[in-house]
Amino acid sequence: MADFEFLRPLLKKEGENILLLVLDGLGDLEGEEGKTPLEAANTPCLDKLAAQSDLGLLEPVGVGITPGSGPAHLALFGYNPKKYFAGRGVLAALGVGFPLREKDIAVRINFCTLDKQGNIVDRRAGRLPTEECERLVAKLSQIQVDGVELFLRPVREYRAVLILRGENLSKDVLDTDPQVTGVPPLPVRAASKEGEKTASIIREFLQKAEKILSGEPRANGILLRGFDQYYPFPSFSEVYQLKAAAIAVYPMYRGVARLVGMDVLGNPQNWEEEFSLLKRHHKEYDFFFLHIKDTDKYGEDGNFSQKVHVIEQIDAYLSEVLPLFSVIAITGDHSTPVKLKSHSWHPVPLLLKSPYTRPFKNLRFCEKDCQKGSLGKLPSEELLPLLLAHSLRLKKFGA
Amino acid sequence: MADFEFLRPLLKKEGENILLLVLDGLGDLEGEEGKTPLEAANTPCLDKLAAQSDLGLLEPVGVGITPGSGPAHLALFGYNPKKYFAGRGVLAALGVGFPLREKDIAVRINFCTLDKQGNIVDRRAGRLPTEECERLVAKLSQIQVDGVELFLRPVREYRAVLILRGENLSKDVLDTDPQVTGVPPLPVRAASKEGEKTASIIREFLQKAEKILSGEPRANGILLRGFDQYYPFPSFSEVYQLKAAAIAVYPMYRGVARLVGMDVLGNPQNWEEEFSLLKRHHKEYDFFFLHIKDTDKYGEDGNFSQKVHVIEQIDAYLSEVLPLFSVIAITGDHSTPVKLKSHSWHPVPLLLKSPYTRPFKNLRFCEKDCQKGSLGKLPSEELLPLLLAHSLRLKKFGA
Repeated sequence: MADFEFLRPLLKKEGENILLLVLDGLGDLEGEEGKTPLEAANTPCLDKLAAQSDLGLLEPVGVGITPGSGPAHLALFGYNPKKYFAGRGVLAALGVGFPLREKDIAVRINFCTLDKQGNIVDRRAGRLPTEECERLVAKLSQIQVDGVELFLRPVREYRAVLILRGENLSKDVLDTDPQVTGVPPLPVRAASKEGEKTASIIREFLQKAEKILSGEPRANGILLRGFDQYYPFPSFSEVYQLKAAAIAVYPMYRGVARLVGMDVLGNPQNWEEEFSLLKRHHKEYDFFFLHIKDTDKYGEDGNFSQKVHVIEQIDAYLSEVLPLFSVIAITGDHSTPVKLKSHSWHPVPLLLKSPYTRPFKNLRFCEKDCQKGSLGKLPSEELLPLLLAHSLRLKKFGA
Repeated sequence: MADFEFLRPLLKKEGENILLLVLDGLGDLEGEEGKTPLEAANTPCLDKLAAQSDLGLLEPVGVGITPGSGPAHLALFGYNPKKYFAGRGVLAALGVGFPLREKDIAVRINFCTLDKQGNIVDRRAGRLPTEECERLVAKLSQIQVDGVELFLRPVREYRAVLILRGENLSKDVLDTDPQVTGVPPLPVRAASKEGEKTASIIREFLQKAEKILSGEPRANGILLRGFDQYYPFPSFSEVYQLKAAAIAVYPMYRGVARLVGMDVLGNPQNWEEEFSLLKRHHKEYDFFFLHIKDTDKYGEDGNFSQKVHVIEQIDAYLSEVLPLFSVIAITGDHSTPVKLKSHSWHPVPLLLKSPYTRPFKNLRFCEKDCQKGSLGKLPSEELLPLLLAHSLRLKKFGA
C-alpha cells in the first residue's frame, strides 16, 4: 500500500492540484461485437487526452479478487483495503452524514415485504420511495432498548441505517437478509461470544419494529446487512498533506470519502450537478475525488449500449473540466462487466495526465491499450503516491 | 528486495562475469521534438545490442518515489533502500576512503562565503578549487573538542567531510545549511534528546572553525548537511558470492560501493579513464559496477542536447568493452529529466545482455521500447538476482 510512514517526511505542502475521476465499474469484457464498452464508445475527448497521458491498468485488491465498493475505493485512496476495512453499515452511516463515534456499531437496514406466513415477498419493499423510508424511520425512532443508545437514519429508497452506541458492543452479528425471497428473514445470531450482547439488543429492536410496521402495506419487514464497528482511519489530509474534497451522488461513496476525512461537497443528484460542483469549487481544494455511478449501474444491469452511452456522455462533459487541473487520473474502482452483471476481478483502465508523462501516441483509453501503456499494471494502492509525484508534492528520498 | 537469506543456499562460487554500467539519471521525458534523449541519440552500438538483449524498466524505490543517489544505487545492488539507508555524511566519508568504524558520525561540510553581517553570499564559496579545500581542511584539522575524536577530510571543490568518533554520539542533529543565500547559517540544533551531546560538540567545533576561517577571502563559513551514523551493511561479496569492483569518478558513488564492501579501483577523473580501468582489470573480478555521472549532470542542468551527446559518446566507447563480459546490464540509478532539472520518480530503462535473453528484435534502448520489452517493469532490487541467474551463478531451488 501507500506506505504512510515512509511518505510522511517526503510530503510537500504545496504542489499542483489533482482530480481523481472514478467511473464506477468501468472495466469490462468484450460484448457481442468483440469490443468492450470503452472500445465501442465514441470518445473524441478521451482519445485526445490518452495521446498525452500515461496509460495503465489498476489491480484493485489483488489478482483474482473481486472487490466491493468500499475496499475498491479505499485502495484508490492508497489505503490497504485488507487492513482498513469498513462494512456496509459504517459506510451507510457516514454516507448520510451521521457523526459516528469510535466503537459505534452500524448496520444497514433494508425495508422488505413479508407475506402472511412471514416469508419475504420483496427484498426491497417495491423499491420504496425515499419519502416513505423517511416516514418509517421516524416511526421506528421511538424504539428504545435498555443499555444502549439507538439512532436510525434513512439512506435512500428502501435503505436505512441503524447505529448502536454503548459499552461492550460488537460487530460479530450475522446478517438477517437471506438474499432470496420465499423464506423468512434469518434469525438474529451472534457470530462469536462477543457478539451475543449485541445480537440480543438487535432481537429486541426487531421485535419492537415488527409491531410498529405490522400495519404497513409494503414495508412490513426489516432485513439487516453488514454489521460493522467504527474506528477512525488515518486522515487523507494528514497522510498526504492534501486538502481533499469528494463529489458523489450515492451515500456509500460519500461515506467512504468521509471515512478518510474528505470534505463531501453539496448534495448532487446526477453527474451534471457533480461536474457543476467541481467547477464551482475547483480552486478550494488540492485534491478532488469525483464519483460517477452510472457506468457500474449499467454493468450490473447487463446493459451494454447504455454503458457505452454513459461513457460517451461523460466524454462530452470532460472538455470543460480538463483545463482546471494539472494532474488528472481517470479510472474505475473495479470492473463491472456487462456479461457478468456484477463486480469482477479484472484490472481497471487508468489514464494519468500531467506535464510529466511518457505517452505512447497511438493508444486509446480502453482495457487492451491500457495494458500496453507506459504505466503497465500496478496496484490501485500505488495510484496516490504516483499522483503526488506528478503534482510535484514529494521530496527526494535520501541523499 | 533481493532476499539474501533465500539466495544464500542457491549461490554458486563460479559463473560468468558481470558488468553493471550505470548511466546516472539516464531516464527522461520527451523534449521539444517529442523524443527523449535516448530516443534522440544516434546509438548504433546500443541499437545492435538491444536487438540481442532483454529490455525492461526498473522502478528504483517505489511507485512515485524520487530517490537520491544513495538509495537508488543500493537498490541496484539489491539492498532494500528503505532498510539500508546511508546519509550524505557517511557516503562522503566512505567516498574519500576514510575507514569509518561502527557508530562513527559523519557529516558533509560545504565551505561557503559569508558577508560582514554573517549572511550567506555563496553556498559553494565560488566553487572553491579542490586544492584550496585541502588547504583549509589542513588548517581546521588542528581543532580539538573534549571527549570526542574529530577527523576532517577534503572531498572535492568546496566539499569536505567531518567525522566524529566517541561515546554516545547520535545522528540526530539538523542541517545548518538553509539551502538559500541572504540568510545566516542555521544554528546547530539537536533533532532529539539523543542528539544534544553531538549538537554541543558541533557547536564548539564551529566556533573554533569560525575563528580559523575569519581571514579567508572566499571560504569564511561552513555549512553542515546530512548527519549520519555509520553501521556496516552486509557485504556484497558475501551475499552474492561475487568478487566485486567499482569504478567511479565521484566520491559519493565510490562511497556507496564501499558501503557494500566493493573494491574501488584507481582514481579516474573522467569516463575515458573509467573505461581504461575496466579494460585493465576486467579479469580480476566477477562483477564490475561502472558509474558514469554526466548523463545526470546534463539532466540537472536542463541541457537536452548535451545529454544526447554524452549518450552518443558512451555508445561509441561501448564496442570495446562489450566483448569482455558475458553478462551486461546497462541502466540508470534513477531518471533525471531535462524538463525537471532534478531526479524524478520515473522508471529507468534497463538493457540486459547475456546468452540467455528473449530479445524482441525491433526495439531500441529507450524509455518507451523498454516498457514494451521482454522484462517488463521490475523493482531495481530484483536486478541483482537476475544478473546472477544470467551468469549461471544460481542453483535450482528445491527438487
